[in-house]
Amino acid sequence: MTEATSAELAAMARAIELAARGLGTTSPNPVVGCVILNAAGEVVGEGFHAYAGGPHAEIVALAQAGERAKGGTAVVTLEPCNHTGRTGPCAQALINAGVIRVVLAVSDPNPAATGGADTLRAAGVQVITGVREAEATKGNIAWLSAVRRGRPYLIWKFASTIDGRSAAADGTSMWITSEASRMDVHALRGTVDAIIVGVGTVLADDSRLTARNLRDGSLAIRQPMRVVVDSDGRTPLGAKVRDGAAPTWIATAAEVGVDATGKVDLVVLMTELYARGVRSALLEGGPTLAGAFLSAGLVDKIVGYIAPKLLGAGPAALLGAGVKTITDAIELDVTDVDKVGPDLRITAVPKREN
Amino acid sequence: MTEATSAELAAMARAIELAARGLGTTSPNPVVGCVILNAAGEVVGEGFHAYAGGPHAEIVALAQAGERAKGGTAVVTLEPCNHTGRTGPCAQALINAGVIRVVLAVSDPNPAATGGADTLRAAGVQVITGVREAEATKGNIAWLSAVRRGRPYLIWKFASTIDGRSAAADGTSMWITSEASRMDVHALRGTVDAIIVGVGTVLADDSRLTARNLRDGSLAIRQPMRVVVDSDGRTPLGAKVRDGAAPTWIATAAEVGVDATGKVDLVVLMTELYARGVRSALLEGGPTLAGAFLSAGLVDKIVGYIAPKLLGAGPAALLGAGVKTITDAIELDVTDVDKVGPDLRITAVPKREN
Repeated sequence: MTEATSAELAAMARAIELAARGLGTTSPNPVVGCVILNAAGEVVGEGFHAYAGGPHAEIVALAQAGERAKGGTAVVTLEPCNHTGRTGPCAQALINAGVIRVVLAVSDPNPAATGGADTLRAAGVQVITGVREAEATKGNIAWLSAVRRGRPYLIWKFASTIDGRSAAADGTSMWITSEASRMDVHALRGTVDAIIVGVGTVLADDSRLTARNLRDGSLAIRQPMRVVVDSDGRTPLGAKVRDGAAPTWIATAAEVGVDATGKVDLVVLMTELYARGVRSALLEGGPTLAGAFLSAGLVDKIVGYIAPKLLGAGPAALLGAGVKTITDAIELDVTDVDKVGPDLRITAVPKREN
Repeated sequence: MTEATSAELAAMARAIELAARGLGTTSPNPVVGCVILNAAGEVVGEGFHAYAGGPHAEIVALAQAGERAKGGTAVVTLEPCNHTGRTGPCAQALINAGVIRVVLAVSDPNPAATGGADTLRAAGVQVITGVREAEATKGNIAWLSAVRRGRPYLIWKFASTIDGRSAAADGTSMWITSEASRMDVHALRGTVDAIIVGVGTVLADDSRLTARNLRDGSLAIRQPMRVVVDSDGRTPLGAKVRDGAAPTWIATAAEVGVDATGKVDLVVLMTELYARGVRSALLEGGPTLAGAFLSAGLVDKIVGYIAPKLLGAGPAALLGAGVKTITDAIELDVTDVDKVGPDLRITAVPKREN
């Protein structure tokens, strides 16, 4: 049988749900979900990858299934790994458990881990691929894009009024958006590996840039790396971003190198972040840095929090994106519009291929 | 019986629907809908006010009901008029038709027309008021606000990118938003009595400011008055806004008078527009005029067309709204967010009382 059965399709939907539970804690690994069906097609094991260094989804699901996996089917959102990293290769574990069929959604684009399907086939296991591939890809989009391109998946977040101002004429902005939106931003921070800001934002706001519970101030268990793009090394020694709450990288021109404009080379910065294990990052400000990332084609997703206010004066959320005339505008596809408290959250992706 | 029956509640919902068919063509009159029920509570007549000078809703519905109105009930969205204008008083017509009960949603705030309920009661007709009042008020909001305040209900329309730009750095803006949004704007123009722009917009765009079918260019039957706020009388003699397609008023400081800033006094302008029969108006541009109307508290509703584009440079949609610090921001309630083609249409009302 070379097509997925209805039981396998249902199991894949469940595996994709399971995978999503790992979002934000698996980096630099992908999220993965796995469901084991016995020979009769009944669910006998479930698992997901929860954190880097922890057991892979297949191992968790096989442990739950035990002997019942023999003669059964493993339904996995991503091609089982073939390499021995911090854990053994999953392909071999599936073979050892006596699984006779493996149903996959997405092939592993990671050159170090790929080959799992071949190993399975060589051992006589039937492998079918591409089942619910689009859904599974969506669930893993940050990791997949990052691995395919060798740079983090970048989300640009901004907050502005309906008339596009990120602060009032006198520079005051605390707070443009509502508490609900600020809590949403902290949740978003909890799903990425790094938060990127320009030194101007550090100098203006002295934010901690941590992921916290805004009600009680408690820090999330896992904190993204704080990255300050700071060509000339102006981040003050006493800046809150240098506190011990999370790792911090002050990325200077001296360390990273410069682009044609004499500023930190953002392509090199992104490659270096990838090398440091960053698969997804949140770009938070300011407007000029956002313009530089956008015009370099490095932004993959845009999340705008739009407050129901008008200012008529004050700084814009975006500057210097390299657009001079209307036909060169950066075109987006709006994927979601949600109400967050009184604010609107607009989610969009650039139309051009990055 | 002093409460509306379920048949009367249903008839009022229908009357409100009927009333809405007149939107855009009844000015300076309100929209009104009427349903006549016979003595058994069955619908025997329906009508709405279609255009100023045409028969009122009650007259249309009574004509349809004929003898069946005798002993019946009239369900009307607005208090029947008591005066003889271009048509006779509706209160008397209802009495003459033998209606024994009248169910009303909203009392008439127009001093020249009010008193209909008293006339009915004096003739022994039972009158109950306030039935579905909120819904009927919403359907007539522009006219009711205008009559209560003696100035037009003003809708500010703007178009911008997600980052709040109304044109690119070189001034190009044709077209920021999609054809779907432009068609929507022409439909919106068809619902108001006047379109207001600043002379800067005339000089920059030389728009015709008519309500047209964008597919074939044909003009709507009824055209709103075109109003150019032009302190120094700079509208060129050959400007398209001066063509014969619609009435035009070039409102100069010499004619209207000036406010403290030396510009056309907008409060006087609005009062004068009301005197000229304008009950609702659409403010289309530019950013400085919008800021002046907003800071004067003269804007009742905001319709923003947000294109899924980023520019990072170029003029803003709003300037000089009198806000210097974030706590003075003009707060809005967003009432609707809709997709119009690829664009978002955000509808909002100012929170402060105007």
